Order: sequence, then C-alpha cells, then structure tokens
Amino acid sequence: MSMTTVPTDTAITRLLEQFRAGTPAALARAVSIVENHRPGFEQILAAQHALVGRARRIGLTGPPGAGKSTLTTRLARIYREQGLRVGIVAVDPTSPFTGGALLGDRIRMEDIALDPGVFIRSMATRGSLGGLATATREVCDVLDGFGMDVILIETVGVGQSELDVARAADSTLVVLVPESGDSIQTLKAGVMEIADVFTVNKADRPGADRLRHDIELMLGLRAGSGKPLRRREGANVPADTSAETAGTWVPPVLQTVAAENQGITQIIEALDRHFRHLEQSGELRLRRRMRLREQVMEIVEQQIRQRLWRDGATLAWLDAQLDRLEDGSLVPFTVADMLRAQSGSLLTGAHYTPVTP
Amino acid sequence: MSMTTVPTDTAITRLLEQFRAGTPAALARAVSIVENHRPGFEQILAAQHALVGRARRIGLTGPPGAGKSTLTTRLARIYREQGLRVGIVAVDPTSPFTGGALLGDRIRMEDIALDPGVFIRSMATRGSLGGLATATREVCDVLDGFGMDVILIETVGVGQSELDVARAADSTLVVLVPESGDSIQTLKAGVMEIADVFTVNKADRPGADRLRHDIELMLGLRAGSGKPLRRREGANVPADTSAETAGTWVPPVLQTVAAENQGITQIIEALDRHFRHLEQSGELRLRRRMRLREQVMEIVEQQIRQRLWRDGATLAWLDAQLDRLEDGSLVPFTVADMLRAQSGSLLTGAHYTPVTP
Repeated sequence: MSMTTVPTDTAITRLLEQFRAGTPAALARAVSIVENHRPGFEQILAAQHALVGRARRIGLTGPPGAGKSTLTTRLARIYREQGLRVGIVAVDPTSPFTGGALLGDRIRMEDIALDPGVFIRSMATRGSLGGLATATREVCDVLDGFGMDVILIETVGVGQSELDVARAADSTLVVLVPESGDSIQTLKAGVMEIADVFTVNKADRPGADRLRHDIELMLGLRAGSGKPLRRREGANVPADTSAETAGTWVPPVLQTVAAENQGITQIIEALDRHFRHLEQSGELRLRRRMRLREQVMEIVEQQIRQRLWRDGATLAWLDAQLDRLEDGSLVPFTVADMLRAQSGSLLTGAHYTPVTP
Repeated sequence: MSMTTVPTDTAITRLLEQFRAGTPAALARAVSIVENHRPGFEQILAAQHALVGRARRIGLTGPPGAGKSTLTTRLARIYREQGLRVGIVAVDPTSPFTGGALLGDRIRMEDIALDPGVFIRSMATRGSLGGLATATREVCDVLDGFGMDVILIETVGVGQSELDVARAADSTLVVLVPESGDSIQTLKAGVMEIADVFTVNKADRPGADRLRHDIELMLGLRAGSGKPLRRREGANVPADTSAETAGTWVPPVLQTVAAENQGITQIIEALDRHFRHLEQSGELRLRRRMRLREQVMEIVEQQIRQRLWRDGATLAWLDAQLDRLEDGSLVPFTVADMLRAQSGSLLTGAHYTPVTP
C-alpha cells in the first residue's frame, strides 16, 4: 500500500549492492536520489541506517568571504594524509543575487575532487517538500554509510540555515575574519551557541588579535557566570537521557591563514580534542540520539505533506473550496480542519516499504 | 475540543473590538500575537479573513546594500502624500554574522515611523513551527484587515526566502545596483520570474546604464522567444481558473537614486500600471486565490506539527523508540509510519474554535 513508486525494487537493490561494494558511481547516484527525494530514497537511507555513526561530522560556517572553502580544502588534505576518506557537503542557501562567487569557490575546490578518496557534493536551496537541514543530514548519512571517515559540512552564513545545518554536525567550526565586523557584538547569540571551535582566518590582516581577544572575552565572561556554558540550539533533551551530559567545553579561539596553510594542524588538533570530549562526556551519543529523534519528526512531516499534496482528490476538494474562501463565507482555519478530518487514511496509512535485500 | 489554549475568549474579543475601532495599540498587539503564533492568533486572523484583499501588497527585494530601506521609505512618503495608509513589513532572514547593518537600516526608517498613518514591523527568522513566508503573509493580512491601503514588504535578498516572500505580494519590485554583479548572468532564474518592475538604484554610479541595458536585453530575448514571458514561481494554477490568465506584462526597467529622491514617482507609476494590469487580466484574482490555497495547506501542516509535537504522549512514545533506532533494529521510516498510524485522532481532530463575537 505504499504511496512511493519505487522504479523497481530490483534497480534499487542493485544500486545498493554496488554501493556496498564501494563503487564511486553508485555513491554519486545514491546521493542524487536522496538529495532530491527521488523514488527509492527511503530505501537507500534505510539501508544506511544501521551503518550510520562511524563518520565524524564537522560543520564549518561563517560569513561570505571568510575563506571557508579554502579551509575545508586544507582540512580535507590533512585528513587524506592521515589515510581517512573524506566527504564534503557544501551547502549554498545563497542569494539569487550572488550566485557567481560561490561557483568560483566550488571550482577552486576541484583539485581535491580528483582524489578518489574524496567525495564532494554541493547542495542548493530545496523545494517545499523538504528542508535544507534535513537534506544535508540525509546526504551525510549516505556518505557515512558508504564508509567516509570524516564529513566536512560547509555552509555559508546566511539566515537561519547555518544554525540548522550545524545540528547535522558533531562539531562546528566557526570561521571569522578580522573584517567580519568592528565588534564581536555583531555575532548574534546563535553563533556563540553552535561554535565548538573558533578560528580567526586571514589572521595576517590587521585586527586579528583584537577579534580573537574579543571572542575569548565573551566566552570567558560566559564561562565565569557559573551557568552551563552552552546549550545546543533546539535541544529538546529527552528527560531520560539528560543525566548523560557531563563536563563543559570552552571553545578554543585559533588563528589561521588558510590560503598560506598556516594554523591548519591546530584546527585539526582542536577538533580531535572536541571529539574526544564529546565521546567521554556522553554528549556524542546524546547529540546523535537527538538527531534520530528529529529525523523521525521530519520524516513524519514529509510523509504527510507528500501524501496530502500529491493526492489528486484532496487537491480537487481544496480547489472546490476556493469560491467560499474568496467570498469570506469560510475561513482558512475551518477549511484546514475539514481537510484533516476527511483525510484520516491518507494521514495514517503506511508509507514506507522496505526493499527485499 | 480545541488544542489551542485561548487565554480567554473575552480578551481576544475585546482586542478585536479595539482593533475594529482603529486603535493603533490594538494593531500592534494583534500583529505580535499573529507573528509569534501566540494563543488567539487564529481567531484574530479569522476575523480579518472577510476584510482581506483591499490593500495592495508590494514586495521589494534585492541584494544587501541595494538601498531597499531608503526606497521603501521614499515610496511610503509618496503614498502618505496621496492620503493612503501604509504598512511596512521588513523581513530580515539575515545572517547572524551581519546583524548590525540591518539594524541601522531600521533606525534610518524611524522618521516615517512617527507618522500615525504608517505602521512598521520588522520580522526576523522564525522557529520551526511556521515559516517566514507564512508569517509574512499573516502579518500582511492583519495590516490589510486593519485598513492599510498599501503594504510594502521589504526583504533582503538572501536565500530562498525572498522568493517565498514575493509570493505574499501582488507586485514585486526588484532593486539592483550597478555593483550588483559584473553581469546580469549572476541573477538566477528565480529573480527574473518574480520581478514585476526592476529598478537600478544608485543609478548615479558607473555601470547603471549597462545594467539596465542587460536586464532589458534579457527580458527582450525572453519576450521574443514566443514562449509565455513569465510564470510565477510555485504557481500551481488550478485547472478551472487557468482560463482567467490573459495578456503579458513586460517588467519595466527603471533607474533611481533613492537617497536623492530621484525616479521615485516613476516607480509609483510603474507599480500602478502593474496593478491595473493585474486587475484587468484577472491575474490579481488568480494570485489571491493561489494565496488562499497555499494558506490552507500551510495551516494544515502547522496544525499537524502543533498537535503532534506538543503532545506529551506522542513525544514520550517517540523517546521510547530511541534505543531501537540507535541499535539499528528499527529504521526512522518505520517509526514514522508507526507514529502516524497510532495518531489518528490527533491528526484528524478539530483544532480551530471561532471566538464568540
């Protein structure tokens, strides 16, 4: 009784076989299907589910022009030298007015893209049936399931998105530049809350020490207040797991010149220390459980949207109410109630069908 | 059986009485309740429903620094001189890294904020229970119901948001500046599709004529191709109303120096012409019917999110599945199906209760 038209179970089963065999082309196809929620995406994600959790997920965010792509490339090279396989997810929730610049960044990254141990995927704004944060987490799951050891999630700092995307990461590196602002006051609260490591990039420019000092001051003041230092945005911690939270982490503030390859190993070390902290404090498990929880909630919402708004009868019924909505004899809230009341089986019916392995 | 805890019917009823009497404080309170979806917001919106549709809604979008706030202020002044009441909704889906600059814009706008015939509301990023586009349309409905004649919706061009927000407007003015990009190629398709009028602002700077020429060329090429010139993004036109679409509109490309008050009356004239075109072609009614349709869909989704994710028993059940999700014995898609299957009455139950007038 699935609503999803899986092209053929066999096609997805074969893709998953090639995927498990480590075929790069199968990874690229699987990522495309998942990213765009094409038929079979649920089966691909479900097949990864038990494998997910091996990769370290590192988010990089910061204002446009902070050098995030260069830094991502530098980090990827070091992880490759360590023999690790690297996935890069570049999230571009960018303005339609500034599309050009970011394309340039992508092109600069292409020299590491030739390395077979690196997989790069650029993701742009999503349609209404799924959010960018969801898509990012799902693509990370596919890369994780494929066997990537480190996943770098780069997102440009515009809007709510970078906060959402940070929730897909285990550790978040916030990249600032001396010219980011005259004052640290321009950093809204959200950024302080998601940052696990700060770096002042382009630190050979004037103002780098001042910015580092300002960030440290802000962090120090918060640490000295006796309150828990930071709480992840949107963290609705289930009561039965809150006892696992232990220890505090004061985000280190580093300086880098990514273009000159300066300070990169310090970033790697700080991220390693943060990851050990996450493991030892139990917060890693907590964050990953929270991700699972959010994942189910997002899937429920997506299933409902898909089942309602791709149903011809529901849409035809809605269109038939437009005259009465237009003349004011019905209000939208009443129509919404009516629509839900008559959609019982659409709302509750089974949606997901596993493929036969 | 409403899930919404309305503080008291009486409080909302009294607020609506003051609102109908034209009390500015009641407008401000109503907007705040609606913007934040506080208890009673549905009753306030429902009370506006039959009144909505009198105001002209004009969207302004463009890259940061294009001078949108100045232009908005200039347009508002002229509409005030025409004796019209003006609502301004400034949508800031901005980066946490660049909060400072926009605050400055808001302050510059404050001289017209002292005019009792002007109501200004700044809106920032919304939480997960409702999107920014929805909130914008809802706030516009309140301003419309209050009796504003013109509503200016200003949104900074970052991400998908400005395309969403444009759907809340009848006419969209796209504001560019000579330095927007070396070439019109940087304008992604979405911008061309939402623009009803273009202006090259800061037109006293070098490159203004070139930019204007490039935009006109692009529009002309598209017009000459024989294909329908433009189709509003996300326009799922119901089959029974598509016959109403008639005529084409070629967006004029104007030049302004908003800071020097140059070219503003030409913008007003172009927007007036576009509005007449919308009325005469039947597209105004079509756009507004599409907004009603989208509104119901958004309300359905919001009701479902609220009813599921604020239900203690549902969340407790979900938390109880985390162990099996974590050990891989259950996949999120199955848990989502289970959750929906057992939530029948939550999903279909009545949500909205009208207040007794």
